[in-house]
Amino acid sequence: MAKAQTNCLLIQCEDEPGLVHKVTGTLYRRNANIVAQGEFVDATTNRFFMRTEFSGDVDGRDIEAELSTVLPAGSIVRLNRSRNRRIVVMATKEPHCLGDLLIRCAYDDLPARIEAVISNHPALRRLTEGFGHAYHEVSHDGKSREEHEAEVLRLLDGIQPDYLVMAKYMRVLTGAFIARFPNRIINIHHSFLPAFVGANPYRQAYQRGVKIIGATAHFATERLDEGPIIAQDVIPVDHSHSPASMAQAGHDVEKIVLARALRLVCEDRVFVHGNKTIIFD
Amino acid sequence: MAKAQTNCLLIQCEDEPGLVHKVTGTLYRRNANIVAQGEFVDATTNRFFMRTEFSGDVDGRDIEAELSTVLPAGSIVRLNRSRNRRIVVMATKEPHCLGDLLIRCAYDDLPARIEAVISNHPALRRLTEGFGHAYHEVSHDGKSREEHEAEVLRLLDGIQPDYLVMAKYMRVLTGAFIARFPNRIINIHHSFLPAFVGANPYRQAYQRGVKIIGATAHFATERLDEGPIIAQDVIPVDHSHSPASMAQAGHDVEKIVLARALRLVCEDRVFVHGNKTIIFD
Amino acid sequence: MAKAQTNCLLIQCEDEPGLVHKVTGTLYRRNANIVAQGEFVDATTNRFFMRTEFSGDVDGRDIEAELSTVLPAGSIVRLNRSRNRRIVVMATKEPHCLGDLLIRCAYDDLPARIEAVISNHPALRRLTEGFGHAYHEVSHDGKSREEHEAEVLRLLDGIQPDYLVMAKYMRVLTGAFIARFPNRIINIHHSFLPAFVGANPYRQAYQRGVKIIGATAHFATERLDEGPIIAQDVIPVDHSHSPASMAQAGHDVEKIVLARALRLVCEDRVFVHGNKTIIFD
Amino acid sequence: MAKAQTNCLLIQCEDEPGLVHKVTGTLYRRNANIVAQGEFVDATTNRFFMRTEFSGDVDGRDIEAELSTVLPAGSIVRLNRSRNRRIVVMATKEPHCLGDLLIRCAYDDLPARIEAVISNHPALRRLTEGFGHAYHEVSHDGKSREEHEAEVLRLLDGIQPDYLVMAKYMRVLTGAFIARFPNRIINIHHSFLPAFVGANPYRQAYQRGVKIIGATAHFATERLDEGPIIAQDVIPVDHSHSPASMAQAGHDVEKIVLARALRLVCEDRVFVHGNKTIIFD
Repeated sequence: MAKAQTNCLLIQCEDEPGLVHKVTGTLYRRNANIVAQGEFVDATTNRFFMRTEFSGDVDGRDIEAELSTVLPAGSIVRLNRSRNRRIVVMATKEPHCLGDLLIRCAYDDLPARIEAVISNHPALRRLTEGFGHAYHEVSHDGKSREEHEAEVLRLLDGIQPDYLVMAKYMRVLTGAFIARFPNRIINIHHSFLPAFVGANPYRQAYQRGVKIIGATAHFATERLDEGPIIAQDVIPVDHSHSPASMAQAGHDVEKIVLARALRLVCEDRVFVHGNKTIIFD
Repeated sequence: MAKAQTNCLLIQCEDEPGLVHKVTGTLYRRNANIVAQGEFVDATTNRFFMRTEFSGDVDGRDIEAELSTVLPAGSIVRLNRSRNRRIVVMATKEPHCLGDLLIRCAYDDLPARIEAVISNHPALRRLTEGFGHAYHEVSHDGKSREEHEAEVLRLLDGIQPDYLVMAKYMRVLTGAFIARFPNRIINIHHSFLPAFVGANPYRQAYQRGVKIIGATAHFATERLDEGPIIAQDVIPVDHSHSPASMAQAGHDVEKIVLARALRLVCEDRVFVHGNKTIIFD
Repeated sequence: MAKAQTNCLLIQCEDEPGLVHKVTGTLYRRNANIVAQGEFVDATTNRFFMRTEFSGDVDGRDIEAELSTVLPAGSIVRLNRSRNRRIVVMATKEPHCLGDLLIRCAYDDLPARIEAVISNHPALRRLTEGFGHAYHEVSHDGKSREEHEAEVLRLLDGIQPDYLVMAKYMRVLTGAFIARFPNRIINIHHSFLPAFVGANPYRQAYQRGVKIIGATAHFATERLDEGPIIAQDVIPVDHSHSPASMAQAGHDVEKIVLARALRLVCEDRVFVHGNKTIIFD
Repeated sequence: MAKAQTNCLLIQCEDEPGLVHKVTGTLYRRNANIVAQGEFVDATTNRFFMRTEFSGDVDGRDIEAELSTVLPAGSIVRLNRSRNRRIVVMATKEPHCLGDLLIRCAYDDLPARIEAVISNHPALRRLTEGFGHAYHEVSHDGKSREEHEAEVLRLLDGIQPDYLVMAKYMRVLTGAFIARFPNRIINIHHSFLPAFVGANPYRQAYQRGVKIIGATAHFATERLDEGPIIAQDVIPVDHSHSPASMAQAGHDVEKIVLARALRLVCEDRVFVHGNKTIIFD
């Protein structure tokens, strides 16, 4: 996985001959130089995906305008300059994922800037504020799910983040909330999905007697635990693990997988296509 | 994981204080010397498991007799000398697991001796016979499941193997068949169970868009894909994999995991307790 | 790897028949109940290692006294109650290992308590103090190695930690310093030793074109990068990685491996024998 | 990693703006459709690498002729149709790597066809001939290294393989021999290079007390164990492993890594640049 980039062009459209040639022509005529390029055609759906990193001082609107005349109708084009993405982290009580993100962002280990932390619980305030970030506690006590989310949304409206990161936020989100942030909510689930969907995956893993446990970072969609998967990893466990020690061991995978997914997203490496991701890393 | 061993004592019973002391006293009085020992108590069920490798020329019946007076009622005691276990491999058409076992057993890489290969298909005859083993083709055409299994059982009755190894045997076994070989049938399932139970796990994995696939070796029980898990492992995949290329990539994990599980079993490292395994490796 | 423990008995001595029986007799007569036990004999050196976790309220001195009459001369016996170990973390400028330890210890994810952080640089003061710990900056500017270490030792004399954790402390320690803390200094080296000893391992890895990089946690000894290895792990890299992006990717392995090693040490799972470790996990 | 391909174009040259555009223009004008493309520029050396899989019935010489007028001087262009590569496997006594290749090639699991096996020992004759392949035993007894290699070369001259695969061939090759097959000899080394170069890596690993061992597939060059690395992988070991049991455990990594490297090479995914590989997988 490369790192420094200046511009990144992402194109998703129906496949047809000549697309790479046409797109790179648009860049070439503006003296852009391609640093790294990945292209993939999904044969089943005849869908074309291309990610192009290039250097050069270009006018993005000009490029997008020309591409709109060259590419098939319905193409999705994004042209981003490399920059830190603005994120809001949502968490509840567990510190390992939030803490890991706080340290990474504080020391430029992720192309992301934490704009705020929102939680339904007071537990992580001290940790968050120790890093100089705002901590918004929005208790859900005595509120309907909709009322609670409305409060959260008011905060988010004021911040306008690029992405929401669910770093062990233990509330189920409504479809209406999720629909506000399509492919912009990254969630970490504490199992190697689709095994152990739902509550208490480590207890389920213990009861099944598995020899590996894992974690899954995915985009949140209306269907709980079924959104497009971005990253997964696993670690070995054995008979000596209780559900509690599985959870403890699992924390390391969770935080690493969540950070890996967030990096992929913030570096513009992830396409979403139906319920899957295409990733150029 | 150590290898050479001379004797291996396995004890499973209700836990109570003094068990290790008593058992090792029985060995000490016979001048046995313990080479490696693992002990584990399952706190939830108060169950004691101990595996003791020891050197020394002992009378197994004598030891078992003494232990029966020392251990709690209902204890399960096994005392095995190190030797190659006699196995029968069952397969259908895929060669990778069978082939891997054939080479390992031919070159002393597993403490197992293949007594025969049984298949419902002719495809693997040449491979098997090339290694000098008997290949029994038992076609299931035009037979009920019970009739077919009866033929297989007649073969097995003549061989009396220690273990049956299902090396991608693509027939569902009846409960009656499985009941004949409790904790003695080792199956390889081509997914990291409990994800993707049932048919066509690689197609399921493809459709879900997972980023890791895996394999699970387990003891066969009446409940399909739900027996005690012995070993699991995974490999990464990405969007460029079709179901077919996932299957191909998965073959490597399947054969490695099956061989690992078989080694653990043949080296007397595996206890079964309810639907789980306790493994001293 | 189990977790909760009450007492842990560690014995290392010359092997002879009857050791397990004798030691467990000493425990049995005091109504201790063994929860988990691991025993291993190194055949090459005829050395016996045993780790026994047991519950029960016992008098440690009494047990040690009896064992000294039972075990061979020169035996090494340790009996520890489960408790958080007191550690001092030493670091320089990189935050990932220190930050990870700060969060783990703040939230009881490691059986360790950070007594202080010592650094030769101011960079990590804010991070450390944000977690409420003392940060002792001991600059090495204008000092000989011995003078600098003398200052550090004065601090350590006042703290009397159980273990020193070198969390990317980028100063070479003198033999005299290390000799003060035999098998009590845990260092993280940013390569899978013995590959890439010395300076700039990621640059070395880049130049060699390796496809995996790793990290090694080991006890510090007089011979740099050659002490007994406690834990190692690796991650894949490819041609697109620069030395800088390898280092960034390697941070995740470094912090996970260091925490894993520290957990093993603090849970009394690690024996040192010559230049190797025997680990019961 | 995708699999089925029809044509594969590989280009390596000095980087300059417009290369992707020009090359894809050449393909577009011939109605070729790009299925998957990877491009990478090595910033340090300003070197451009591109691998393009495309479908369409094209005239390779025509494409190569046009590209030679378009690309910078000194460009290296290869255009291959997808087909099984013709390989000769060289081995000595160990069966695991050879056996694994025999099964894979027999059952179309690798895009390679074994033309012959050459060995300096009789041990693997039966295994090889069981799969219907020629086994050429070329003993080195009483011969100088040059005399022995001359005999091997006479065999290879008659076969003209695409690649030589050293599947645990335990003879050091001369520089003159290697120079005959530049970037066409794939060797498996039984350690995660550059750790444990030279003889007996498992004994070295045992003595160092490492917690992981590995294997490295690389192109053979004049400098032993220093050629460009194609693939590496590792497995965990612990104190209970002897050198012999490490070697046994290592066999599984060796065969998997060698097969993975051979697949990458036969699928035209590997560029060599100095002492490194650029791999599009």
